[in-house]
Amino acid sequence: MISEKMEKLVENNSVIRQMFEEGKRMAGEFGADNVYDFSIGNPNVPAPKKVQETIERLLKEEDPVTLHGYMPNAGFPEVRAKIAGSLNKRFGTAFSEENIIMTSGAAGGLNCALKALINPGDEVISFAPYFVEYRNYVGNFDGILKETALDTDTFQPDLEAFERSVTAKTRALIINNPNNPSGVIYPESTIKGIADILLKRQQEYGSEIFIISDEPYRELVYTDTEVPYITKYYPNTIVGYSFSKTLSLPGERIGYLVIPSEAADYERLFQAVTIANRVLGFVNAPSLIQKVVAECLDEKADIRFYARNRDVLYDALKEYGYSCIRPEGAFYMFIKSPVPDEKEFVAEAKKEHILLVPGSSFACPGFVRLSYCVAYETCVNSLPGFKRLAEKYGVNTF
Amino acid sequence: MISEKMEKLVENNSVIRQMFEEGKRMAGEFGADNVYDFSIGNPNVPAPKKVQETIERLLKEEDPVTLHGYMPNAGFPEVRAKIAGSLNKRFGTAFSEENIIMTSGAAGGLNCALKALINPGDEVISFAPYFVEYRNYVGNFDGILKETALDTDTFQPDLEAFERSVTAKTRALIINNPNNPSGVIYPESTIKGIADILLKRQQEYGSEIFIISDEPYRELVYTDTEVPYITKYYPNTIVGYSFSKTLSLPGERIGYLVIPSEAADYERLFQAVTIANRVLGFVNAPSLIQKVVAECLDEKADIRFYARNRDVLYDALKEYGYSCIRPEGAFYMFIKSPVPDEKEFVAEAKKEHILLVPGSSFACPGFVRLSYCVAYETCVNSLPGFKRLAEKYGVNTF
Repeated sequence: MISEKMEKLVENNSVIRQMFEEGKRMAGEFGADNVYDFSIGNPNVPAPKKVQETIERLLKEEDPVTLHGYMPNAGFPEVRAKIAGSLNKRFGTAFSEENIIMTSGAAGGLNCALKALINPGDEVISFAPYFVEYRNYVGNFDGILKETALDTDTFQPDLEAFERSVTAKTRALIINNPNNPSGVIYPESTIKGIADILLKRQQEYGSEIFIISDEPYRELVYTDTEVPYITKYYPNTIVGYSFSKTLSLPGERIGYLVIPSEAADYERLFQAVTIANRVLGFVNAPSLIQKVVAECLDEKADIRFYARNRDVLYDALKEYGYSCIRPEGAFYMFIKSPVPDEKEFVAEAKKEHILLVPGSSFACPGFVRLSYCVAYETCVNSLPGFKRLAEKYGVNTF
Repeated sequence: MISEKMEKLVENNSVIRQMFEEGKRMAGEFGADNVYDFSIGNPNVPAPKKVQETIERLLKEEDPVTLHGYMPNAGFPEVRAKIAGSLNKRFGTAFSEENIIMTSGAAGGLNCALKALINPGDEVISFAPYFVEYRNYVGNFDGILKETALDTDTFQPDLEAFERSVTAKTRALIINNPNNPSGVIYPESTIKGIADILLKRQQEYGSEIFIISDEPYRELVYTDTEVPYITKYYPNTIVGYSFSKTLSLPGERIGYLVIPSEAADYERLFQAVTIANRVLGFVNAPSLIQKVVAECLDEKADIRFYARNRDVLYDALKEYGYSCIRPEGAFYMFIKSPVPDEKEFVAEAKKEHILLVPGSSFACPGFVRLSYCVAYETCVNSLPGFKRLAEKYGVNTF
């Protein structure tokens, strides 16, 4: 009865979301303290105090007709100008409001960018493991997602494999930096390498290939590694940003796209993405929260909270014998499964009330993803379960 | 460079939105008091006081991690339960939270419903004049919008013409009640007539044909006419609702879909629409405002404000000789253009600083739409301009 595309999606419904809803069910059955739900990137750190203060102030000071009303589909011009100014200050760019489109989170933004760029049959590349929804977003516009494997020791792109995967039908590369699910950061050398390959291929094919850089974790970095701002390296870049993680506002659906003036056919592209925002039914990013984030551009959630979670989990898991790369950013760990079929490990972990997501959901079987944006106690209290699982599987021998 | 679908959309960019942005420009040039912008349905009545009070209370009382966090993609269960209860009380229905999906306005909801229902090439019928975006929404999923003309004297559906337009490929009928742009209400007899035709055709074709009922104006009714709740007349109904107009929150993007348990393949349909909400990039309706509307279900914007605008404009325009049906609901008037090419009239009106939208944007040339959700003074001060236009065209002679 439902559409054919949706039939497949219903059958393969997001394992992450199923885990999230299962976690809520288990919390009801066993008590929230006895379930270690590492399934989803739902920040446990409250939004910075300034978010609440700004909402209260705007409600007092602004005309409700403006505050809750329609504005241009790209967003309030003054909000976009403030974001452009903040980016310019931080990254030495030269954006104006005409380079910024406010979107319903990064997910909304990515869909608008893809609608503006992709014709049916066009190819979009992503490095596996990648956020599972990329495949669905590309599929919304009948594009084809092509995976390029990473080196699973470093989780850095294999540039030679990437170069081979670029064809005359390649329309975009989606990258996610810092990375979900691996927690690694692609450094400047990697970005330069990717840009060189794409510039060469564009010339070879006479095509325009875009980097769509999905950056909700840009401010969640635990090391000194710099996260390069890709528009400075490659003109055909669209940056997708979300305030979900930095300001702990994932439910509010607020983010933006950056389309640099140097991008090919910039004016029409900007207009096309703006219209996509309208016709896909977003119309505009939610209005009050647009004005709120514009006042909170220098705020961020307390990163020490996530750093503490990362340290306690990483140190213990390593001690127990698990194999895992130390995350540099975001709030995920991508742990090697002690058995080849990681879904078996996920099922065993669930018996310990530990909820993890199988790597096959990120096109990278044999691993599991752990989201550590949870309470510190959840991390600590999960450790005996992880230890029992390690002993059961003898992980320090694999 | 941009995708082929978007090329067409950029070329034919929404005249309504262009007018809205032109109106903002003109307000800057001539002063807001000297521009009579009737272009867009952006309510000028402030949100009820309880909206602001509820936001302030929730910020104080609720855990920010929940208030701004992820919830199931269909929305907070308690919000959905409250909406179901309110509908049951008002319309004698028997919905539960399992029949409600919170969406990013009605526009977001309609897109999710269409993604769940439509295969490429499927036909979706709408009565012309209709909201211009329906064509784009259906096109997002490669469906084909088929117009069925209304009787332009009454703006009621011509049921015989409608019956002829239903084919084996018909997947849905989108209706909008009270209607944008005509302001009429389809009474129970019309809804029963439509339901009878669809029930017969479903049986004939062995198909499932849905009514998608777009109802953002349900509470904006100036007469005693009842707006039928269509799920009571036809099981394959999806109702799309938005709080944009009733609570004056158009920028906040908050609404819901109702999928009755009697709909064909209900469980999978509900799941498909929920997943569509996720994969189209909405993820969920904005979280704080979900909780706000759940506390404001008995509130509505002061309708007397719109009624006063309607009366002053309708009475004056009739007196000047314009031909127009008296609106029963919503906040639009659909005025017959004094010249066959209504775009000429729109251009002339613009010289009087009066912004109207040509009927061709609603697949009904020869008319213009006027949105009277503006300040009362805007209505009154526009009248001399309308009078001069009437004199110029000699409208009382046509």
